[in-house]
Amino acid sequence: MNLWFSEDQTPNMRIGLRIEEVLHRERSPYQEITVYETAEFGRLLTLDDIIMTTERDEFVYHEMLAHPALVAHPEPRQVLVVGGGDGGTVREVLKHPTVERVVLAELDERVVEVSKLYLPSLAHAFDDPRVEFRFGDGALYVAEHPNEFDVILVDSPDPVGPGAVLFSEAFYRTCRAALRPGGIITVQSESPWFNREQLWATRRYFREIFPVSRLHWAPVPTYPGGFWTFTSGSLGPDPKEPREEAALRIHGRYYSLEIHRAAFVLPPFVKELA
Amino acid sequence: MNLWFSEDQTPNMRIGLRIEEVLHRERSPYQEITVYETAEFGRLLTLDDIIMTTERDEFVYHEMLAHPALVAHPEPRQVLVVGGGDGGTVREVLKHPTVERVVLAELDERVVEVSKLYLPSLAHAFDDPRVEFRFGDGALYVAEHPNEFDVILVDSPDPVGPGAVLFSEAFYRTCRAALRPGGIITVQSESPWFNREQLWATRRYFREIFPVSRLHWAPVPTYPGGFWTFTSGSLGPDPKEPREEAALRIHGRYYSLEIHRAAFVLPPFVKELA
Repeated sequence: MNLWFSEDQTPNMRIGLRIEEVLHRERSPYQEITVYETAEFGRLLTLDDIIMTTERDEFVYHEMLAHPALVAHPEPRQVLVVGGGDGGTVREVLKHPTVERVVLAELDERVVEVSKLYLPSLAHAFDDPRVEFRFGDGALYVAEHPNEFDVILVDSPDPVGPGAVLFSEAFYRTCRAALRPGGIITVQSESPWFNREQLWATRRYFREIFPVSRLHWAPVPTYPGGFWTFTSGSLGPDPKEPREEAALRIHGRYYSLEIHRAAFVLPPFVKELA
Repeated sequence: MNLWFSEDQTPNMRIGLRIEEVLHRERSPYQEITVYETAEFGRLLTLDDIIMTTERDEFVYHEMLAHPALVAHPEPRQVLVVGGGDGGTVREVLKHPTVERVVLAELDERVVEVSKLYLPSLAHAFDDPRVEFRFGDGALYVAEHPNEFDVILVDSPDPVGPGAVLFSEAFYRTCRAALRPGGIITVQSESPWFNREQLWATRRYFREIFPVSRLHWAPVPTYPGGFWTFTSGSLGPDPKEPREEAALRIHGRYYSLEIHRAAFVLPPFVKELA
């Protein structure tokens, strides 16, 4: 059998992954959800044929989305994850012992259900009693919960289709309002190789909206260009300054105290556009 | 037209780049040399259908192969580049004003000639009078020139076919002998995602052969996994310690003084295997 999943990461660049089996395929009210067994990356979850996560490399993305904000914040208790239906981000959040409650505001309940069945190494996090599910419009949920969260993590798909609203200035302003004093938000902000306008717009919004804003990055093999950025805004501590004690408690496969600091060092070609 | 170049980066993972034109194709005595015009990455050079370099992302690889050793060394005068027939590494070497002579020991003269024609932004470096060409067996050239170089950069293809010898313990030992006192060597050492045994072997050889050995990394979109490693051995200064003055003179698009330091910070999953 010579079966390949192929994603056009840009109109001019493709990634192909050898598939051993199509494990699941369904059309939810929002999107097509597919799970594959790949030969190289373990299980692969796609939404509308776009790679969301693979078992083999997901740790880079999820650790680097979650830990910088949670390690910089002095005492994260209430955490909101917008998107993130596979469970990887929630799993990382729960590694912080101060966390009392994690709300998962995910559009599509079916992504959570499928992940529970096929991606247990991520979705096992959903069994934790601290996790609360709010299915539906994440932006609406944020708008209705001012002054509630210490940390917000936006684990969104790409800025097309249902995910587009999560890249808007209006959404980031409601996120600011949903933060408690000293709160921090981190969003995935796409590739500096292929999504430069998006990245630039996000940086600009964050600079306007938050007293402190920062960009950090991590190398994710199955995302376009293999180089992924995260943008943070803070009402208090600087996200690039880890609390040492909190960082050393996280035994990451990508994240470490030293990597936290290094991830905020931007190469000149990224600085230029951010 | 819907024309794609495709490389199987591993037996189970592919990259595809949209091609606008095949600019050149020849079989040299050693390999097939092809140059494409791509839609996303500018011109692309392949050897035996493996991506060597693209105009758009080559700066990441070439800057990060060349500058750490040249910036750590207090006064690099004599430099040897093994491989590197496209000119990108030599171009970076020549940015260091102490350099008096760069020997390019490249197996295949045709790679140099083709690069001069099709990749002028890299190969213009070959016009510099400090550059000396030695075509043929690079390992033999190294063996015949003991105690001659301050810095050696091994800009090799993958460890298959003609490039395999450049990953052997015996070759690294002759490199040590070709270094002058205080000299530094840096080699490209493949991906930590897909070439773990190779990376591990290189690390072990360098630890045995050189008093100081280090690993650093950089994200290169068109190389497998988008995460590339470099291994350095030194008879003198620690490659991870930049001389500030020398680093600030390099106005890189990826390289900077801060990136030099950050690049030697290894994520735990890489530390484990190195």
